[in-house]
Amino acid sequence: MEKEIIKYLSAQQCSVQWRAFLEVFSQELTQQLTVTNLRGLMRRSGERFANQHPLPATETIAALQEAINVVWRSQNWGGVSIVEDGARLIIKHYLSPLQSGMPEGATWASGFLEGVYEQWMHQSGADLSLHVTQSRLADDLGTVEYSFGK
Amino acid sequence: MEKEIIKYLSAQQCSVQWRAFLEVFSQELTQQLTVTNLRGLMRRSGERFANQHPLPATETIAALQEAINVVWRSQNWGGVSIVEDGARLIIKHYLSPLQSGMPEGATWASGFLEGVYEQWMHQSGADLSLHVTQSRLADDLGTVEYSFGK
Amino acid sequence: MEKEIIKYLSAQQCSVQWRAFLEVFSQELTQQLTVTNLRGLMRRSGERFANQHPLPATETIAALQEAINVVWRSQNWGGVSIVEDGARLIIKHYLSPLQSGMPEGATWASGFLEGVYEQWMHQSGADLSLHVTQSRLADDLGTVEYSFGK
Amino acid sequence: MEKEIIKYLSAQQCSVQWRAFLEVFSQELTQQLTVTNLRGLMRRSGERFANQHPLPATETIAALQEAINVVWRSQNWGGVSIVEDGARLIIKHYLSPLQSGMPEGATWASGFLEGVYEQWMHQSGADLSLHVTQSRLADDLGTVEYSFGK
Repeated sequence: MEKEIIKYLSAQQCSVQWRAFLEVFSQELTQQLTVTNLRGLMRRSGERFANQHPLPATETIAALQEAINVVWRSQNWGGVSIVEDGARLIIKHYLSPLQSGMPEGATWASGFLEGVYEQWMHQSGADLSLHVTQSRLADDLGTVEYSFGK
Repeated sequence: MEKEIIKYLSAQQCSVQWRAFLEVFSQELTQQLTVTNLRGLMRRSGERFANQHPLPATETIAALQEAINVVWRSQNWGGVSIVEDGARLIIKHYLSPLQSGMPEGATWASGFLEGVYEQWMHQSGADLSLHVTQSRLADDLGTVEYSFGK
Repeated sequence: MEKEIIKYLSAQQCSVQWRAFLEVFSQELTQQLTVTNLRGLMRRSGERFANQHPLPATETIAALQEAINVVWRSQNWGGVSIVEDGARLIIKHYLSPLQSGMPEGATWASGFLEGVYEQWMHQSGADLSLHVTQSRLADDLGTVEYSFGK
Repeated sequence: MEKEIIKYLSAQQCSVQWRAFLEVFSQELTQQLTVTNLRGLMRRSGERFANQHPLPATETIAALQEAINVVWRSQNWGGVSIVEDGARLIIKHYLSPLQSGMPEGATWASGFLEGVYEQWMHQSGADLSLHVTQSRLADDLGTVEYSFGK
């Protein structure tokens, strides 16, 4: 796919209404709080989001993935693919508007989805000692990879 | 106009994509920062926004109002009417998505437009001793009134 | 409410993406087809829409209204209020994007909702001899009144 | 890129508000008019669109492409790349909402962009004997290729 199309698609993920606000607001936040604080803030916001959008009970990874995608689709927040990799789950979230809407340096923003996914996994009965961590930086289309396990 | 229509229109102002995020994120922010801090954060974010969206030079209040509305329209941020009232300017911003997208208690959010308007007024050559302050709470459609003067 | 706000809200109902297309396309359609043909085309399109979006069974007018609003909300097509008036139902559809997106002269476009509502009423068990007809032209905010009965 | 992402991106190009309407309306149109008529209707609608959105004068193909993309971006209508190929221009329009919003069989819909591009080329001073014709069907992301020449 040509570069120009990827750029267009990536920009399109975050609504025009919030792009400029998110940019200046996150610039100010980084003046006031440390990156560690900001990542924690995002994580806890994500946990709140998961609590306000509880998932139905599901029996398989495929059904869990679909239940999660129902939530994301209703919000225009991209989507997810979840695959097992030994004892871990690899969670790839593509086309998140947060990824495309936040300024480039704001890597702490990806803490939000960490919090969402970890809370959803715990809601689904996963052991509380298991955690979600980001395992890869965003690619050009804003796909971020998370890993769930020990 | 019927209540139901007003409710529909108000909800429509903030894109579905950001409503849930703004809610949980602002809830977490109020855990971490005081209302005074948050209002200041919003004000400074607004000043940054004004600096990133400088207005063309204008000669009249009507032309200033129109120049500002060009910015807001391009972002789906509602619009403004500005009228002189003695030595002051009354600035009414209607249909801001921040007003409809933030949770009800988050009155500090209206600091954002305070910062935007004050910075724009100073850019336009107004005396630095003059300030923008909110003079009325939001009505049902989210119109907020600000006053610019001493 | 000020005129400017009403104008802004009305324009907002139809997505920017389709406004220009709908304008030129409906101008061409009126070159090719009569107003009667176009209204019939719209009516039958509306019936198709109703068939593709069947309503759940409901027991009361209030429940019917809510079931219909669930459909409209999911599509950003405004909403409806339905009240009994003797042997008739008065159906007021507010903020339809078709109303704000079509050029002013294209009154045949309101045949679409006629078709949708009539088909939904018949699906709900209403007598096939009863019909939906437009009983009032659109107001400034694009509210159109239909009447269902003999 | 994974299939699921392509499907998501393609669906995203046409606003939710118009997808269902366009589907039923184009189904009814095909009952009433022949495919040749419909393609002509689309072509002439496209010419009207070009007349209502005249391009600024440009000196190079690259500048022409950029002037066109300014129009498409303002409408969320995807974008275009234009390259010379001997005596012809190859015009690739990517991510048109018409492509993703119309039902699959409605190949006549791509007549719209044929009309737009041909009219813009003639406006730019191209010989009236030169025409735009579709040279390739849409790919998965809805990119359609047109050719301008004899």
